[in-house]
Amino acid sequence: MNYTAILQEIYQQISRLPVTGTVAATIPELAKVDPGKFGIHLTTIDGEDYGIGDSEEKFSIQSVSKALTVAMAFASLGERMWERVGVEPSGNPFNSLVQLEYEKGIPRNPFINAGAIVIADMLVSQLKNPKQDFLEFVRTISGSPNINYNSKVAESEKQTGFRNAALANFIKSFGNIENDVEEVLDFYFFQCAIEMTCKELAHSFFFFANEGMTRSGRQILTQSQVKRLNALMQMCGFYDESGEFTYKVGLPGKSGIGGGIAALYPKNFTVTTWSPGLNEKGNSELGMNALELLTTKTGMSIF
Amino acid sequence: MNYTAILQEIYQQISRLPVTGTVAATIPELAKVDPGKFGIHLTTIDGEDYGIGDSEEKFSIQSVSKALTVAMAFASLGERMWERVGVEPSGNPFNSLVQLEYEKGIPRNPFINAGAIVIADMLVSQLKNPKQDFLEFVRTISGSPNINYNSKVAESEKQTGFRNAALANFIKSFGNIENDVEEVLDFYFFQCAIEMTCKELAHSFFFFANEGMTRSGRQILTQSQVKRLNALMQMCGFYDESGEFTYKVGLPGKSGIGGGIAALYPKNFTVTTWSPGLNEKGNSELGMNALELLTTKTGMSIF
Amino acid sequence: MNYTAILQEIYQQISRLPVTGTVAATIPELAKVDPGKFGIHLTTIDGEDYGIGDSEEKFSIQSVSKALTVAMAFASLGERMWERVGVEPSGNPFNSLVQLEYEKGIPRNPFINAGAIVIADMLVSQLKNPKQDFLEFVRTISGSPNINYNSKVAESEKQTGFRNAALANFIKSFGNIENDVEEVLDFYFFQCAIEMTCKELAHSFFFFANEGMTRSGRQILTQSQVKRLNALMQMCGFYDESGEFTYKVGLPGKSGIGGGIAALYPKNFTVTTWSPGLNEKGNSELGMNALELLTTKTGMSIF
Amino acid sequence: MNYTAILQEIYQQISRLPVTGTVAATIPELAKVDPGKFGIHLTTIDGEDYGIGDSEEKFSIQSVSKALTVAMAFASLGERMWERVGVEPSGNPFNSLVQLEYEKGIPRNPFINAGAIVIADMLVSQLKNPKQDFLEFVRTISGSPNINYNSKVAESEKQTGFRNAALANFIKSFGNIENDVEEVLDFYFFQCAIEMTCKELAHSFFFFANEGMTRSGRQILTQSQVKRLNALMQMCGFYDESGEFTYKVGLPGKSGIGGGIAALYPKNFTVTTWSPGLNEKGNSELGMNALELLTTKTGMSIF
Repeated sequence: MNYTAILQEIYQQISRLPVTGTVAATIPELAKVDPGKFGIHLTTIDGEDYGIGDSEEKFSIQSVSKALTVAMAFASLGERMWERVGVEPSGNPFNSLVQLEYEKGIPRNPFINAGAIVIADMLVSQLKNPKQDFLEFVRTISGSPNINYNSKVAESEKQTGFRNAALANFIKSFGNIENDVEEVLDFYFFQCAIEMTCKELAHSFFFFANEGMTRSGRQILTQSQVKRLNALMQMCGFYDESGEFTYKVGLPGKSGIGGGIAALYPKNFTVTTWSPGLNEKGNSELGMNALELLTTKTGMSIF
Repeated sequence: MNYTAILQEIYQQISRLPVTGTVAATIPELAKVDPGKFGIHLTTIDGEDYGIGDSEEKFSIQSVSKALTVAMAFASLGERMWERVGVEPSGNPFNSLVQLEYEKGIPRNPFINAGAIVIADMLVSQLKNPKQDFLEFVRTISGSPNINYNSKVAESEKQTGFRNAALANFIKSFGNIENDVEEVLDFYFFQCAIEMTCKELAHSFFFFANEGMTRSGRQILTQSQVKRLNALMQMCGFYDESGEFTYKVGLPGKSGIGGGIAALYPKNFTVTTWSPGLNEKGNSELGMNALELLTTKTGMSIF
Repeated sequence: MNYTAILQEIYQQISRLPVTGTVAATIPELAKVDPGKFGIHLTTIDGEDYGIGDSEEKFSIQSVSKALTVAMAFASLGERMWERVGVEPSGNPFNSLVQLEYEKGIPRNPFINAGAIVIADMLVSQLKNPKQDFLEFVRTISGSPNINYNSKVAESEKQTGFRNAALANFIKSFGNIENDVEEVLDFYFFQCAIEMTCKELAHSFFFFANEGMTRSGRQILTQSQVKRLNALMQMCGFYDESGEFTYKVGLPGKSGIGGGIAALYPKNFTVTTWSPGLNEKGNSELGMNALELLTTKTGMSIF
Repeated sequence: MNYTAILQEIYQQISRLPVTGTVAATIPELAKVDPGKFGIHLTTIDGEDYGIGDSEEKFSIQSVSKALTVAMAFASLGERMWERVGVEPSGNPFNSLVQLEYEKGIPRNPFINAGAIVIADMLVSQLKNPKQDFLEFVRTISGSPNINYNSKVAESEKQTGFRNAALANFIKSFGNIENDVEEVLDFYFFQCAIEMTCKELAHSFFFFANEGMTRSGRQILTQSQVKRLNALMQMCGFYDESGEFTYKVGLPGKSGIGGGIAALYPKNFTVTTWSPGLNEKGNSELGMNALELLTTKTGMSIF
């Protein structure tokens, strides 16, 4: 497959599209990002790298980080993780409290905010220095020791994250958060404030495509575990637009309101995009378009 | 009407009933109360007092205080208060977040927790020393200068009030709380932690029955305003059991999870009960029974 | 009280208001009604009649009929009626199916469509000739033997009443309808298609204000039963605007999408209005205004 | 892959499990089925057949038929089909009305009952003789001319299908059903009452695994279209247990309350199971177990 040519075609087609999405306004620090940015990076299972556009510029990965915290928690807790969070799509917006009430504080899945906060709580319980340990984990799987948090973004989110504070307190009221709410939210806001380039993100997700093994040969999860997390990303990775993404793109993936998307074709490649304009469901509009073009052009989808 | 005889009859009938309700368990400090307590007090529009049982023992008025904060806010803000909180029954439990999500942070009415927190926010904005000023207001309308907060109860609630913290943060995320969440909750928990006897509570509610004027002749609200708050209590005073209370008792009133109820027959009397055992809707079981007996025996209901 | 003068004042004030509501569009036959019609009629407990405007013109009473079927069912079934329908406000639109699903086919109250259909089912089980018997009942309580169904309206509703057919089938699926769905709906559509003048409607509701006794001295319900139905109308008579009506008007009442409202002040009067323009909640806009003027001018509300 | 040995292993493991699920009770005719039945059939892309147990016994395919009606509608209507039905998982039980109300009569996806009824309506509009034409379609894709409806089952469902009648009327009230409700339901009940063996069902689903082409070489859908329907099955094929099935099995599939499941591994095989005992979500308990064993033993899942 001539990925260089394909990425170029996609880049040109995307460049011709109007920038219609809106940059995330809920986090003041993120609202400053240039909406015209666009990058795409693809890493094959053989380790070849293909990038175009702003693919080596750092951006805030935000909720894409949820796939990484879930992997870290799954590696240490295994299946008993699912006693505290489900594996079903929510059918509701990413920050909804409604289902949580009907379902007694057990979030539907780890990719909506409620679920990611419960995962954050698990890691806060498990890790000695949660923020530092998670950062080390990300540096290891990506092979990029210079990845870091943007603490201005984390603080910005802390100042305005009332909805997440509501979620965390609500879950705590059902007994499904063990640690102090402030501490859990602090970790959660930092996890979301990690910055990476498209390339670094594609490398970080490599083990999801490579049966659990990173580019440097480290086995993070078993093959069976990775299949399960990929399945979960497929079902729930794009909030209440997961069906649309699966229908059009047909690859497991995870989006973030920083405008990033990471997706993967098991045993073939990982692919990441960055375009800050979001559609009304909170997913990167051009990023989704670009990935639809990719699977249309290559015929490479899991279905 | 021979109220002495009627109250005695009620007292005897209630005494024969088994104590089936459960004392509020969500607030540790309240869980210690003796479930066998029962008091009832009636104050006529002419100022006569009739009490029986534990009617002169202090208890935590909890949500009964919501009627008093609403009155205080209404007196200073008038009708524009309703831009931030509705006047419709919620049809949901007292601490539900579901409706709040669908209705964008505007609570259905001021008697569910969400609404009372918005009212608390209004008072925090309006008053110089919110906690002290509200206490003075309560002392004035009741004529009892020794009424006070139980700060142990307030602190106990603060430690465990995750659901209320969730509500406050959630409302703040919609922009319907002006002040700092902590400050609003601090006021709210103190307001709920006021302690009164049945007698003091009946005196406090006197102005609702007396066209807006307290026992000492102070006009708190206009006649029209008091009618409106009475209407609101009728519709929403007992959470999602308001219909049941209206159906069986037929008087406006407000309950609290401390086991207290204050009700009134406009231009006739106020009546209060205290029995800590709550039914599954969070209302005092024997208190509701006692008031049903009262309107059945006297035929005095507003319908 | 000089009701003649008061009604005239109201009539003039209402006449100056723009006709902003919209005539019910869901039932084709009703959509033809002149939106400019307005009538008001008040009958005192002493039997005096005061009417103005189009108060002696027939209109389709629609959901106002629900108060009459409930009374008829209550008279024969008593309290066990409430095993199949609740007494709580719904907090939802009149034709919502949501609550019905969560609450397993037990409608919240008899004044939303779901509840009225269950009441219709009870009457179909109880009565020999349901449509004829109910018509006789209405003629008796109103004292107007010429009251009748408009079968064109009933048929029109049958052709387009998919939402009601959905409700009836849904309730049947929970086992809370005994008879054939078609038969129950046929009765329900006819009950709604009764036509009356404001005057006839005020006379029909007389027994609600008169401790259960009609103008001709017939005891329909006990005093206690009538109090309970009045309480229920107060809580639930205006769908999810019941709180607003109670807050502003302070009288028990029932509205219909034909633009009619019947309300009452126990032991004092019944009052009816007709104006076909509905607000977005499905209640007559000018009718509600007129009744608010009435209680403001007279100070006569139950609170 | 030695499928003979694998199916035998699975068969033995499943045979040792207790029969805990319950046979569908909502349709009287189905309730008579022997709960001890169990069959499994696998057809490879090369056309090899592997079956074991009761795999050649007829059963009622029920909702498995929804995948076939969707394919037929998609073939003739293409993407504009999605104006009337969505592609998102519902997060709710198969026969829920709640979402339909919030989303104005547009069902979330074509695999919940509401969505399948809309698809049935499309086919009733498109086909000359809907029931006969659909039967011909099924006979063609399966290559089994003796496949037929069980009209006793269809009639049984018609007598008791109040929930489906509620759904259809509800959707009609939003204008999203074009034909007569009775006619649409008649087609829907017949579509569900088709009977097949596991083998016939595996053959019918062959084109989903084979890029749109049936075993006899007929192109039903394009490769891209088939990918999209497979994606949809993955997201929504098991009601509110779709996440669980995807997590554990990792193949697109569709279940029915007759106890059947059809699943497929694109470009590899189709596999069907039949075991009438359903779990509380309405999916075949042992069927799901068997398929989990299959992907665990073979490592053949799409993730």
